Amino acid sequence: METNYESLISKSCKNIPKSFVREILSVCDKPEFISFAGGLPNPTYFPVEQMKEAFEKIMETDGKATMQYAESQGYYPLRQWICDWYNTKYNMQITPENILITNGSQQALDMTCKLFINSGEPLMMEKPSYLGAIQAFSAYRPEFHQIRLNNSGIDLNELENVVLKTGSRILYGIPNFQNPTGISYNHQTREDLAILLDWYGIMFIEDDPYNEIRFDGESLSPVYALNPLQTIWCGSFSKMVSPGIRAGWVCAPKELMPHLLRIKQAADLHTNNIVQRLIYRFLCDNDPNDHLFKVRQAYKTQKDCMIQAIQQHFPEEISYTDPEGGMFIWATLPSFLNSDKLVQEAIQEKVVFVPGRSFYTTNDGYQNMRLNYSNSSEEMIEEGIKRLGNLIKKAIIREKETKLISQTY
Amino acid sequence: METNYESLISKSCKNIPKSFVREILSVCDKPEFISFAGGLPNPTYFPVEQMKEAFEKIMETDGKATMQYAESQGYYPLRQWICDWYNTKYNMQITPENILITNGSQQALDMTCKLFINSGEPLMMEKPSYLGAIQAFSAYRPEFHQIRLNNSGIDLNELENVVLKTGSRILYGIPNFQNPTGISYNHQTREDLAILLDWYGIMFIEDDPYNEIRFDGESLSPVYALNPLQTIWCGSFSKMVSPGIRAGWVCAPKELMPHLLRIKQAADLHTNNIVQRLIYRFLCDNDPNDHLFKVRQAYKTQKDCMIQAIQQHFPEEISYTDPEGGMFIWATLPSFLNSDKLVQEAIQEKVVFVPGRSFYTTNDGYQNMRLNYSNSSEEMIEEGIKRLGNLIKKAIIREKETKLISQTY
Repeated sequence: METNYESLISKSCKNIPKSFVREILSVCDKPEFISFAGGLPNPTYFPVEQMKEAFEKIMETDGKATMQYAESQGYYPLRQWICDWYNTKYNMQITPENILITNGSQQALDMTCKLFINSGEPLMMEKPSYLGAIQAFSAYRPEFHQIRLNNSGIDLNELENVVLKTGSRILYGIPNFQNPTGISYNHQTREDLAILLDWYGIMFIEDDPYNEIRFDGESLSPVYALNPLQTIWCGSFSKMVSPGIRAGWVCAPKELMPHLLRIKQAADLHTNNIVQRLIYRFLCDNDPNDHLFKVRQAYKTQKDCMIQAIQQHFPEEISYTDPEGGMFIWATLPSFLNSDKLVQEAIQEKVVFVPGRSFYTTNDGYQNMRLNYSNSSEEMIEEGIKRLGNLIKKAIIREKETKLISQTY
Repeated sequence: METNYESLISKSCKNIPKSFVREILSVCDKPEFISFAGGLPNPTYFPVEQMKEAFEKIMETDGKATMQYAESQGYYPLRQWICDWYNTKYNMQITPENILITNGSQQALDMTCKLFINSGEPLMMEKPSYLGAIQAFSAYRPEFHQIRLNNSGIDLNELENVVLKTGSRILYGIPNFQNPTGISYNHQTREDLAILLDWYGIMFIEDDPYNEIRFDGESLSPVYALNPLQTIWCGSFSKMVSPGIRAGWVCAPKELMPHLLRIKQAADLHTNNIVQRLIYRFLCDNDPNDHLFKVRQAYKTQKDCMIQAIQQHFPEEISYTDPEGGMFIWATLPSFLNSDKLVQEAIQEKVVFVPGRSFYTTNDGYQNMRLNYSNSSEEMIEEGIKRLGNLIKKAIIREKETKLISQTY
């Protein structure tokens, strides 16, 4: 019998969309390209020396235990460290029993969806939303409901309508410096959401990978701190230490932990033991704030630089967000332009961004561009935005001429 | 509304069985316990010093790249290393395009099941089978069909019957030193299976984590080498280097790679970059055979010691396997004894094993015990088997007396 692989592929797998970012990275990962497409932290600030020292220490004091199988829930001292850090920051009372260490916060998304969603059931998220979440969740074939994101955060009226209409009890969102928009929920939205979660019995999957890279404005409580019984809070060391380490965590109500543990065991037994101990050692021997201070300062400079370049080079018709942290600016083109087309032209000019469509489960986003500023120098930002601005201006002139011609005839 | 978490848990999650091993480890992880329950490699042979040197090197030469996000398919030089190693060993022609690096081989099981199985569809595996596979697969709610394992490997007649009856096209198995039984498929079974895979269009998920720890007999071709178009071959560095690193791989037909890549991206973006480069450096700078030679020698000694102890201390009624590699011996009690009951008594005597039931998706295994020899010293093996032997002897006498009494009355 000849092999027909397609006939063997599951509905789950077929439902997972490709990642534009990962596809494009393989094309544009060349030094001559200016990339605003990735979500890569700036490697200048990776603490290479400190990690070397930390590794030496753990191998000297505890080498064999470091290389052995370990607890599924994660390295206890690291879980304790997370509690101490955030209990201080937000005046909370979380304990290591609330924490499970994951293989990056992407795994936390996969796990929470596996925990809650039966195929065909409703799942709510922001509109637009993180494409990695759309990918992870798609494997479980939910019925997606995207809910408008305003400048103050998720639209709670629309949320309530969707809950009443669909009976959905699972909501995914990124309250801090959302990916892709850079928008943050304000304090009022967080408080109102916390009340709504109780009222309708909704579980909120609060994705918070950019928590530590706020460079402007006041730090705001995670929704978890306002309603710890109805929230699963997902954090990451990707931005705090480095993304190549693939370490994150979920902070969840204790009642859910036995379920999350079974899911973790089934998925990969436990998160890399070496890396968990390495991070813990690094965090004990260094003040993470020293490292974070540099990162925040650099990202603010890069963000400011991109905003300035946009103001200078983009035509007036383009609107854009101005985030207080995180790594992304979200720009909106006039309705007669198309970012899928624009990105093709941009690649010819050796500059690349992510067109908006990847962030929608609906047929939307044709006017949007996600621009990452964290992994480009000021010179590259200035040059890349200039090239994009020229392309947009040309496209606008072209469209207006076409319209004029079609009106003339 | 009061929180009713149970009502939110998905069918997937509810279907994942608890891991006896992981449950028992938390009870028996004390120095006074003799544990034959785990599947832990012997930490004596973990190459701590070499790993320290390798880490220093990668951070010095390539520290920043090591800490950045990386390719979903895995670190190219490591994939090339795997190809070179096994192409030489088995005269194959695999290329890095066939390889995807996973977060331990447990993740390969999760991913392949996500790739192929829609809920309710048939999935074939050996009887008994690896409990971690049963866990991973359960999340996808297949209809399990366990197929008898003989001393020469999986029973191909029964396999054919199940295929004809259920239409199943997915088979999972461990041809080398199976977990839990220690049984290996002989060469004939491998060849015949390779033909059957073609005939019925079956995909074989060939789990091969113990490949490198054969300490007796002749090395045999993986089924992948005999039929690379119908096999996904899953390997692991857990036994070759150390399990705490959580690194394994799948070797699959190229046609399946785009699907596996989407699944990997959705699950956790990519496997830990630091660890992939660390393993690669270690493998380049050291001859893995030096390390493996020591491990094999030690495991053979430990296995021989356990077999001798069983011969000396277990009553004659107990049968057992005598593996040529791997980490497990599978013992079978007389039908009137129960290994669930025996393990409770054993825990009182501070010795522990895994009762057989965990390895069945059917209501079987009450007479079986999985005994791990890789993580105990010879003294502990001798002492632990003696204690178990005494318990079994007592249980046999007790059962015979009960029977005698019931016959008397």
